[in-house]
Amino acid sequence: MLTAAELDRFRVVLVSTRNPLNIGAAARAMSNFGFPSLRVVHPYEAGFREARSAVGASALLASAEEHDTVASAVGDCSLVVGTTAVRHRHLRHSVRRLEDGARLIRRRLRAGRVALLFGSEKFGLSNDDFSHCHWLLRIPTGEENISMNLGQAVAVCLYELIREGKAPGAPEKHALAAAAEMERITEMLEVALCESGFLDRRRVADADQRVRRLVRRLHLPQRDAIMWLGIFRQIVWKLRHPGSETTSGESELPS
Amino acid sequence: MLTAAELDRFRVVLVSTRNPLNIGAAARAMSNFGFPSLRVVHPYEAGFREARSAVGASALLASAEEHDTVASAVGDCSLVVGTTAVRHRHLRHSVRRLEDGARLIRRRLRAGRVALLFGSEKFGLSNDDFSHCHWLLRIPTGEENISMNLGQAVAVCLYELIREGKAPGAPEKHALAAAAEMERITEMLEVALCESGFLDRRRVADADQRVRRLVRRLHLPQRDAIMWLGIFRQIVWKLRHPGSETTSGESELPS
Repeated sequence: MLTAAELDRFRVVLVSTRNPLNIGAAARAMSNFGFPSLRVVHPYEAGFREARSAVGASALLASAEEHDTVASAVGDCSLVVGTTAVRHRHLRHSVRRLEDGARLIRRRLRAGRVALLFGSEKFGLSNDDFSHCHWLLRIPTGEENISMNLGQAVAVCLYELIREGKAPGAPEKHALAAAAEMERITEMLEVALCESGFLDRRRVADADQRVRRLVRRLHLPQRDAIMWLGIFRQIVWKLRHPGSETTSGESELPS
Repeated sequence: MLTAAELDRFRVVLVSTRNPLNIGAAARAMSNFGFPSLRVVHPYEAGFREARSAVGASALLASAEEHDTVASAVGDCSLVVGTTAVRHRHLRHSVRRLEDGARLIRRRLRAGRVALLFGSEKFGLSNDDFSHCHWLLRIPTGEENISMNLGQAVAVCLYELIREGKAPGAPEKHALAAAAEMERITEMLEVALCESGFLDRRRVADADQRVRRLVRRLHLPQRDAIMWLGIFRQIVWKLRHPGSETTSGESELPS
């Protein structure tokens, strides 16, 4: 979990972006994940600040800094990381998978500023851009289609930075029905099976056990136990009183 | 790391998507991360297969399945997960953070098919869509701007599924019933509830959804699905033919 100060020390730097909609999409993802600082280096279109794709991020886009050079855009950062789709080409730089690279970036953010560079949609970052970088980051796309959409690449990188690494507590599970409730349901179901003709006790000696196992395998939530008991009770009543009017009261379905 | 077979067993389901460019962007992210199976449920525009945003993913988009209903789109899946931006609203479903939810999805993919549903850009998934889901997944966006772009949300979810984590959890024990089996059981149970007088459809407008959720909350093993369907079918038959002799054949209890 990054602190507000750490989020503030991170810069997304978009270099030579061609489509202003992608700048807007990057801004939207930054806003989604809490990163405020966007810098653009000679964007292809001047009107990027009006990009309609920046839903909920117009303030962030309005405050984006425009820089003439990569050097200026990363000037206040102590770690500069470039992004690339390619695995092996950049022999001059080490290339880290996003999972590993993000860990290093988070560590650096504790004390310093970090810039993450994204190149143009068509050509990516140039060798000159790379020369400003300490190392490169690669999103682990498959061989068949390594090239991601710019806005999606930004979203994935930022998500990896803010995701919770360790087991953050077990997911909320439903309390399960207690054995006594399960047993009442089992008994009522068994009566329903007999009354409906599904089960002929004379033929199946261990029917009790089979039905019990069948019900136990359901992992019945506690909140639903009374409901299921009521359902089977009503079915039994109706099977025994086919002509009668319906009983009332218990037919409230849970939401 | 997901195997090719596991990637094949995963379905991205886009429900009521308005902008065809977002369907193309979803297809591109799927292609980037190696997931081949896309399903769309009544998209807003018919011409989505020509979306130019599907860079490198035209074959995937061409083979996308079109479905009329969510039930049909998730029919072959034993786990159905909905996505939501909201934290607390869906009291009827448990909501898991993406990091935790992805772990459960990966585990389920070892033995069964999983569907991940994304709603429309404007309204997200409806309550009826949610009623097909076992639980909901939330991308951990910040409070200031919780709403992600659809293509970016798909990319982030798929990335989390393929990212290299630490030790994988224990394998799933029982294969669970597929959504189509659950739906048949739901329908038969609902008939039984009506015939027995438990449920008066005129009083409960959203009875379908309630019964569907009740059944989805069960942890129904695949091996028991036919049995439960047979039980409810026999109960319905007997409720409708109170005087008649019992039907035969289906009353074999599992051991």
